[in-house]
Amino acid sequence: MKFEIMRDRLLDGLNDVTKAISSKTTIPILTGIKIDVTDNGVLLTGSDADITIQTFIPAEEDGNQIINIVETGSIVLQARMFNEIVRKLPTNDVEIEVKNELQTHIRSGKTEFHLIGSDASEYPLLPEISTENRFEIPADLLKSVIRETVFAVAASESRPVLTGVNWNIENDELICVATDSHRLARRKVKLENLPNGIESIVIPGKSLNELNKILGETSNPVEITMSNQQILFKTDHVLFFSRLLEGNYPDTSRLIPNEFKTNIKLDGKTFLQAIDRASLVAREDRNNVVRFETLEDDAVKISSNSPEIGKVEEQIPVESIEGEELVISFSAKYMMEALKAIHGQDVIIQFTGAMRPFILRSVHDDSILQLILPVRTY
Amino acid sequence: MKFEIMRDRLLDGLNDVTKAISSKTTIPILTGIKIDVTDNGVLLTGSDADITIQTFIPAEEDGNQIINIVETGSIVLQARMFNEIVRKLPTNDVEIEVKNELQTHIRSGKTEFHLIGSDASEYPLLPEISTENRFEIPADLLKSVIRETVFAVAASESRPVLTGVNWNIENDELICVATDSHRLARRKVKLENLPNGIESIVIPGKSLNELNKILGETSNPVEITMSNQQILFKTDHVLFFSRLLEGNYPDTSRLIPNEFKTNIKLDGKTFLQAIDRASLVAREDRNNVVRFETLEDDAVKISSNSPEIGKVEEQIPVESIEGEELVISFSAKYMMEALKAIHGQDVIIQFTGAMRPFILRSVHDDSILQLILPVRTY
Repeated sequence: MKFEIMRDRLLDGLNDVTKAISSKTTIPILTGIKIDVTDNGVLLTGSDADITIQTFIPAEEDGNQIINIVETGSIVLQARMFNEIVRKLPTNDVEIEVKNELQTHIRSGKTEFHLIGSDASEYPLLPEISTENRFEIPADLLKSVIRETVFAVAASESRPVLTGVNWNIENDELICVATDSHRLARRKVKLENLPNGIESIVIPGKSLNELNKILGETSNPVEITMSNQQILFKTDHVLFFSRLLEGNYPDTSRLIPNEFKTNIKLDGKTFLQAIDRASLVAREDRNNVVRFETLEDDAVKISSNSPEIGKVEEQIPVESIEGEELVISFSAKYMMEALKAIHGQDVIIQFTGAMRPFILRSVHDDSILQLILPVRTY
Repeated sequence: MKFEIMRDRLLDGLNDVTKAISSKTTIPILTGIKIDVTDNGVLLTGSDADITIQTFIPAEEDGNQIINIVETGSIVLQARMFNEIVRKLPTNDVEIEVKNELQTHIRSGKTEFHLIGSDASEYPLLPEISTENRFEIPADLLKSVIRETVFAVAASESRPVLTGVNWNIENDELICVATDSHRLARRKVKLENLPNGIESIVIPGKSLNELNKILGETSNPVEITMSNQQILFKTDHVLFFSRLLEGNYPDTSRLIPNEFKTNIKLDGKTFLQAIDRASLVAREDRNNVVRFETLEDDAVKISSNSPEIGKVEEQIPVESIEGEELVISFSAKYMMEALKAIHGQDVIIQFTGAMRPFILRSVHDDSILQLILPVRTY
């Protein structure tokens, strides 16, 4: 194996695939990056067994030569070390050569590194995904969908399926739901050409967070291919594979109330800042609970009390209050995360009494719904 | 106690004094910030017992009222909480009032926090420093002096006095020395009006690092007042007190060689990058050792070898080599830190054989000297 490549292009590729590599892996070869050199270019692969990221650097692009391929072949190099070496090389021309099976030479200017690689044939094979169930979504829309749901997955592994986001395909809609059983986030997206072979999958929250870091804020399409065990997200040069979570995701639709006793419209940003302040006192207690109370003249009172620290109290004006008076307590953290997901637009909060779950959504847009269970205080 | 203040000014002051506060303190009241309100303004104090930082916010500045003082008094408020509350207040007008001894009310807009403060009379008193031994130094020069020496202090407490930087006053020169007994950094500064009452003090490295963060890159003078136990650095609004280390600092002057067998002039920046690359392999071994070898035709070879990882080898051109051929090994970390302290100018390295300490300095400037002990390799 031997090729010459521009350092900057190699670095870009390494930046993508290293995101999949975990130093905590129990499979030693997965601390490495697999390099496959073919006649068409160089394929880099990084994986932590759950997530696999591949990026392909073509030998030629728009008629310009990017890589000079002298001899094809494969090798696995320790990821952290290889990355840092490439980053610190003295010139933009890099030559990588493997001799005597695993002896790898990295040359640039008058610098030469010798590393001992690992046998690429020992690197785990990627699962095959049939191209049957496939659809497209713009990258920036996919990023929004991720950000608006993934924060609500369960952190604990006590019900593993809740650590993922449930994606459901119903007719022409993708419905994404996450819940940790104390709150729920739901995002609906209308899309064309959705497949009908697979109805429901659960994608690990961790995978979606990593995918979000890799996707750019562009409207370029991301091609999504689903199977029962794996999902593949494909952009221009990056392939992002994630395993799926097993087990049945609970039916959450009947949790969402559809009759309400108190409806409050307010400015999400002002409300978020007030909750953030109240949380300074609230979070010193274990539960991070704030109290919310309707007042007359379209105002609400937010307060919190921690016997050891002190208390906070504040009134904010709201646009309108319809229905019954209300005193309710909830987690400041959940409320802040829900408000951030709705992007501080005009928000409507709909309550069904102090002991029942309540929902938040944008006044203008029904596609994002956030649900929070109140906290009982005595 | 009661006053109204602009939030931004209060925040600036809090930013300075919180740098002294450590969450690891064993003295509970030192997790707090002391607020003293007098007729002239507000004095904020933070301390971890070793370092104390004070900042004074005047009631009036350039004819503008900054603080409206209603009632004088003092209180101690939990630093982290107070800081975050002030940062998140809804308006730029803040009112702080203490009622019933320790009950503190912080008001802004329609937000009100109630905190329980601590009794200011329980806050440790600052030591008095006589104004006798006093001199001035521009802030940017003081920052350079700190950065060029403090990295070389000992990290371990086995010889406590070596965790500080020794400041010596000799005639019209301030001589600053730090060593961990494997390498040494020395910076000389010519200054006018140096005091003659105190010849040698040792300032904790940690204090100098914190001071460096507070000082701005300006040529404004910093007034320095020394006693046998304390040093005070005074800028426009900030007073920075540090306790001094006890014990005799070793006489380091006789460690510095003055006869040399090999003199090498080179570009500090090129050399630093080459050592940085070699260190990628070297640091995987416990000692982080690189090998340095003179070649013919004004070049040197830098190499490192780690049985588990691999090796690296590189040649760099130098400006000149005078004297004997040389093969020597040293810590890559020490070499990089020394080169950074000399700021990548034209550097001269002077050796007295492979087993003896060697020195680095700028070709143009004698005020910074770095000394490194080589590592014996077999």
